Amino acid sequence: MKISLLTVGDEILIGQVVDTNSAWMGQQLNLAGARVVTVISVGDTMEAIHTGIREALDQGDVVLMTGGLGPTKDDITKKALSEYMGVDMVFHQATFERITKMFEVWGRPMNEAHRLQCFMPANAEILTNKMGTAPGMWMEYAGKVIVSMPGVPYEMQYLMENEVLPKLKKSFPGQPIAHRTILTVGEGESHIAEKLEDFEEELPEGFKLAYLPQIGQVRLRITGTGTDEAALHQILDEKAAIIKARFADIIYGYGTETLEGAVGKMLKERGLKLTTAESCTGGYMAHRITSVAGSSDYFVGSVIAYANEVKMQILGVKPETLDTHGAVSEQTVIEMAEGAVRVLPADVAIAISGIAGPGGGSDTKPVGLAWIAVSNGQTTKTFSIRAGKDRDKNIQYFTVHALNQLRQFLKQL
Amino acid sequence: MKISLLTVGDEILIGQVVDTNSAWMGQQLNLAGARVVTVISVGDTMEAIHTGIREALDQGDVVLMTGGLGPTKDDITKKALSEYMGVDMVFHQATFERITKMFEVWGRPMNEAHRLQCFMPANAEILTNKMGTAPGMWMEYAGKVIVSMPGVPYEMQYLMENEVLPKLKKSFPGQPIAHRTILTVGEGESHIAEKLEDFEEELPEGFKLAYLPQIGQVRLRITGTGTDEAALHQILDEKAAIIKARFADIIYGYGTETLEGAVGKMLKERGLKLTTAESCTGGYMAHRITSVAGSSDYFVGSVIAYANEVKMQILGVKPETLDTHGAVSEQTVIEMAEGAVRVLPADVAIAISGIAGPGGGSDTKPVGLAWIAVSNGQTTKTFSIRAGKDRDKNIQYFTVHALNQLRQFLKQL
Repeated sequence: MKISLLTVGDEILIGQVVDTNSAWMGQQLNLAGARVVTVISVGDTMEAIHTGIREALDQGDVVLMTGGLGPTKDDITKKALSEYMGVDMVFHQATFERITKMFEVWGRPMNEAHRLQCFMPANAEILTNKMGTAPGMWMEYAGKVIVSMPGVPYEMQYLMENEVLPKLKKSFPGQPIAHRTILTVGEGESHIAEKLEDFEEELPEGFKLAYLPQIGQVRLRITGTGTDEAALHQILDEKAAIIKARFADIIYGYGTETLEGAVGKMLKERGLKLTTAESCTGGYMAHRITSVAGSSDYFVGSVIAYANEVKMQILGVKPETLDTHGAVSEQTVIEMAEGAVRVLPADVAIAISGIAGPGGGSDTKPVGLAWIAVSNGQTTKTFSIRAGKDRDKNIQYFTVHALNQLRQFLKQL
Repeated sequence: MKISLLTVGDEILIGQVVDTNSAWMGQQLNLAGARVVTVISVGDTMEAIHTGIREALDQGDVVLMTGGLGPTKDDITKKALSEYMGVDMVFHQATFERITKMFEVWGRPMNEAHRLQCFMPANAEILTNKMGTAPGMWMEYAGKVIVSMPGVPYEMQYLMENEVLPKLKKSFPGQPIAHRTILTVGEGESHIAEKLEDFEEELPEGFKLAYLPQIGQVRLRITGTGTDEAALHQILDEKAAIIKARFADIIYGYGTETLEGAVGKMLKERGLKLTTAESCTGGYMAHRITSVAGSSDYFVGSVIAYANEVKMQILGVKPETLDTHGAVSEQTVIEMAEGAVRVLPADVAIAISGIAGPGGGSDTKPVGLAWIAVSNGQTTKTFSIRAGKDRDKNIQYFTVHALNQLRQFLKQL
């Protein structure tokens, strides 16, 4: 099934909004075995929307449109659709009643613009949007399918998951498709790919392996299709087991897990409390850890020791250590980590000190160098890493590596 | 001048990459007075690229293409272009010499794929890419212009700023266009718009005001066009002065400044050192502050006091305060802020405690509630805020509001 995505709205064209909807839809459709052949964005005019619909229909069997369904004057997607398809607009009573009820619950008055929102192209099958006022629409036209959804991400996502994807699967039944996603950290894409050359060659027809890199991490996704669903899952499990055995050390999880979530789970299982002592990452590591809901179960807090005085006064790093070895050194991160476990009510600490850049580098300690220590008070392990020159990327890279060192440390406990 | 953006690459279609390039280009072109009429993404096949070029040319006077210029087999943009335009590919000696030199500097061997990268459509004017191996190309075809650039964001940005935008301005001279961007924080878009209704109505022909909202912040951009450049700038300055006078309190800067950068500048000017004591923001505030290069000049570090023990042990919050008022209370943030100034080598502290969600809310203290205190040891000011239900958004919203309270506090010093 070939799919065209069509986004309506000037805000994409002037760059006020980044089109994350299309990326999300592309991912979901790809996972469902559909092929997105083009993504088109057009502005809020009748002519532009008609051009967009024509070109989208030209390339796809299905056109998934987002945007232009709001109650304001700019929002003319439905009018453009009814004109393009040559059908009337009709009042949809059930939508009117649903919206009326929503406004009652909110205790806000409904106005004429909201009533006008209930007119729909006559051939539209209404897809109920439980997340907002504008419903989705499923329309058959010239032997193809056009779907229109609101551009608000969580409304579009709700409609895709609950209405559009199930209907697409029913209308365009393809071979069953399934996936296994294996999450790795700490090794580069090309190194992993080298070790999987034979694996890729031996994959049976209808199976493929994709490398999805992020900063410091690579997701490996095996996708398979086949008529026999049980056999399909069996092969996927066998193939995943091979990767699992070959890369046991760098796999932190499966599916949609995050590294910080996986580490959190390990801490919770072991009944351990975590703290961080951060210099160059400036709180980003604590932020990543606390971005997980429920992290207060295992995370007590951090000392962001940006200035050397804080390293000394709060964490107890010795002035001699800083004088002799400098703030970015193995000795300093050891004292930071051991100090953090001593001073804070935690069982394990990660400490990090490095040069995020763009300034502050030297010949012996260049921008991108960082030292990491992980300690539980008895045992302290240290690591140095080298990243690039970009401040933001370095901070992310350092953080991923530090969380990975913590993960390795916890595995031994 | 009407512009079509055309992105080549399967990674956009399967949602592996979010198309931030188009948003960046849309912004820059809009600022330069050009109008992006469509954004099209197609896959890595000859047929798809040809379709994309045809549709992009159909709608725009200029087509700006990105992607598909790398040394691998997937990268067929140049071949697709030469076929589409019916021109030969020719070897470009100057590019070969430039790439050869780059590899010498890197100390890496050059291979056949890199030599093949030096073949270009015969009608292409080469745009030197100082950021990478693949050059940009400027081609005239059927009375229109096609530009091809690499998809790597910083290479594309370099070529746009140094080659493409200047050449577009020369080839399509329009009326001078200029902007003033005024950055506000702490008031909603609709409230600001209400107070600018008369201002918008009185704007002369050729001038407009745009509202660009972010979490907790709104950028106001006045854009003007006119034949007399001096008069244009004079009107823009006058109009900006009106907004400046009307919103003195909520304006934190101009142009491309960030809130954390503006606050950093104020601290530096006053010779003051900052610390943060964070509970619900979990280090995100420190992260935002240290995302500014050079922040070590005024930021000493933070205590992330996620657990109550840390609030007590490191910041000296009294157990009675936590027992009587709870962790999310005015009294607690006062003691956190005053404790932070006392314990850390800083002159000013921001403290925050709240409920980021999704769990942890109650009837009296719902998800989205936060208390903020700003203190210099002598004076302590407090504020409470209410945000929504989304954990990530709440953390960002809390942080912006806290930085804004610090800004207001510093203004008095």
